[in-house]
Amino acid sequence: MRDVAVIGVGMQKWGELWERSTRDIFVESALLAMDDAGVNSLGAMYIGSMTPGLFTSQEHLGSVMADYLGQKNIPSARVESACASGGLAFRMAFMDVASGMHDVVLAGGIEKMTDIGGGDATHALATAADMQWEGVQGVTFPGLYAMMAVAHMNKYGTTREQLAAVAVKNHHNGTMNPRAQFRMEVTVEGVINSTKVADPLNILDCSPITDGAAAVILVPADMVKKFKKPGVKVIGSGHATDTIALHDREDLTTLSAVTEAAEQAYKMSEKDAKDIDLAEVHDCFTIAEIIVSESLGLFERGKGGPAVEAGETSLGGRIPINASGGLKSKGHPVGATGVAQIVELTEQLRGEAGDRQVSGARVGLAQNMGGSGGSSLVHILEVM
Amino acid sequence: MRDVAVIGVGMQKWGELWERSTRDIFVESALLAMDDAGVNSLGAMYIGSMTPGLFTSQEHLGSVMADYLGQKNIPSARVESACASGGLAFRMAFMDVASGMHDVVLAGGIEKMTDIGGGDATHALATAADMQWEGVQGVTFPGLYAMMAVAHMNKYGTTREQLAAVAVKNHHNGTMNPRAQFRMEVTVEGVINSTKVADPLNILDCSPITDGAAAVILVPADMVKKFKKPGVKVIGSGHATDTIALHDREDLTTLSAVTEAAEQAYKMSEKDAKDIDLAEVHDCFTIAEIIVSESLGLFERGKGGPAVEAGETSLGGRIPINASGGLKSKGHPVGATGVAQIVELTEQLRGEAGDRQVSGARVGLAQNMGGSGGSSLVHILEVM
Repeated sequence: MRDVAVIGVGMQKWGELWERSTRDIFVESALLAMDDAGVNSLGAMYIGSMTPGLFTSQEHLGSVMADYLGQKNIPSARVESACASGGLAFRMAFMDVASGMHDVVLAGGIEKMTDIGGGDATHALATAADMQWEGVQGVTFPGLYAMMAVAHMNKYGTTREQLAAVAVKNHHNGTMNPRAQFRMEVTVEGVINSTKVADPLNILDCSPITDGAAAVILVPADMVKKFKKPGVKVIGSGHATDTIALHDREDLTTLSAVTEAAEQAYKMSEKDAKDIDLAEVHDCFTIAEIIVSESLGLFERGKGGPAVEAGETSLGGRIPINASGGLKSKGHPVGATGVAQIVELTEQLRGEAGDRQVSGARVGLAQNMGGSGGSSLVHILEVM
Repeated sequence: MRDVAVIGVGMQKWGELWERSTRDIFVESALLAMDDAGVNSLGAMYIGSMTPGLFTSQEHLGSVMADYLGQKNIPSARVESACASGGLAFRMAFMDVASGMHDVVLAGGIEKMTDIGGGDATHALATAADMQWEGVQGVTFPGLYAMMAVAHMNKYGTTREQLAAVAVKNHHNGTMNPRAQFRMEVTVEGVINSTKVADPLNILDCSPITDGAAAVILVPADMVKKFKKPGVKVIGSGHATDTIALHDREDLTTLSAVTEAAEQAYKMSEKDAKDIDLAEVHDCFTIAEIIVSESLGLFERGKGGPAVEAGETSLGGRIPINASGGLKSKGHPVGATGVAQIVELTEQLRGEAGDRQVSGARVGLAQNMGGSGGSSLVHILEVM
């Protein structure tokens, strides 16, 4: 396998993009990434999108996007792993370049969630859970993550305040990210007193509904000198699954797909958790960030809540998590999220992250999750 | 890149499988393929499915299927390229093994089309077309292929009888395939007098709505001796796109994505059209088989219709096409079709195809199509 590097990144400001279509949003981000890399043509393209059929009645995005991007005839594939679709697109692009199939490959992600007609976003998102055993009972994602939160609180003493501290940190980071959807500070009291969604999770514990896309360009590591910007090397890739239904798991307080994907990525990169300088993780709900940080091995089990409360995962802390603002503040257009994590790591490792720059960052980890942890992707990037 | 071989195949009888769920159908085919190969565990899995969200309200099939197949924790990804999703899953599995990532990889396809609630199959399928410029005008797939048929008839003199000859041949072949949905002979007169769908296409020019799955196991070619059955080598893989909308194409009588994907596969395999002993092609409508046979270079442009009428593509003809019965007779569970083509080629190249065996077959080609040709996958397999 060839070594692979990220050489260009692009994403627009996320939010409710009513005036732009799915294809406009994707092409905008893809052109930003191509411009950042200084390339005009692509060898292949992988697009992560969770359920464009339910959100916008348009499947076959591989063809749509290659066409509208002016890249007619290239191999262009859509891939899906629920909310980890973007991470999966990045892994497929990595594998494509690593295998020697193509030299310049775009990995993109897109979801237009606000335009949904005929159904609603909660139904569309619920198709990432086990519809046969969970969905038909009326269980939706806030409910699934609330059950994990209760279990974690019971087992480890994780507090309501620690959950809120995740939202406070990520919203603070998001105020420094010009592309974040919700650039506002929140307080522990504000989160705890916000509208109840599924006990113990309130509205400010939940990531929002978002329109947005993100794209990155991958090339063989030995070609980076041909491009405009410094390359960032992809040193580890992991992908794993778990039971689709939460009730089939032995333990609700950890995520085995995250641990397994991380172990694959650590092994490939010859790094371990203590080598990671910053991480972008899948904080679809506040409890998710805490459990993921433990499942990745960044903290011992049960220590994720105290760590966030103590500022260990804040900018300037021991291991900054979600410097971008995370899904919580930046927004969560589900198919795009995994690619946006790579955008953030690349900018951080290039030293281009402005006010939210993690100083001296050399190794970054991205963790993207599907459903309630039925799938997870982990990637590790390093300064070249 | 490592050489790759198919070492096991599986699929059930296709049709209206009311008594079985999506996961039952997929797991049944996957277990048949694993048994055929003699393997109990997988390194990774790729699943082609076009729109399980619209058909059955269940996305995240990567996680669902790894879980129900008893392969918890493996990397398992769903990929989509409309009706070419199965071919794409096969290509991703090929690339995974070729890159050295994993040694035993399953490529599967699944669609459960008869259970659709909340919408209808025609809407679900239409999401493979350009919904912004075609779908909103009420254009559906029979209409798009009817426009191609009219253009081909006007330009080349292709006749109504030649279209019907495709259905007659494929239904005849399907009578010899125990897994085909419609195992019945049809006649030229029967096709021409069947119910009009979109002039000039009648109901017997159209492939059916089907429930079904198919699966194959891929391994490095140098490992085939470890398994139960003879390996069949994957010598070429091609993947290309075209404009998503038909009206954006310069010529409605050819399919540039098919030609481009075929050229990639011919180049990789160091074969050309004249080396192909049999082909499984995407006869979603009778006209599609004729145009595809020309776009692959198996016949000159305009000669595809006369060729089928003259029996050149029948069993025993110069180049048998759709010995399996094709989509027309075997059925067309859209995500599964591309994988089922590989099942047929593998059985033919192993000499296991029974009454429909193409004698002396050494090189086979599979062509799978998304939408009205917005994407296409081409694979070439050879006896080892």
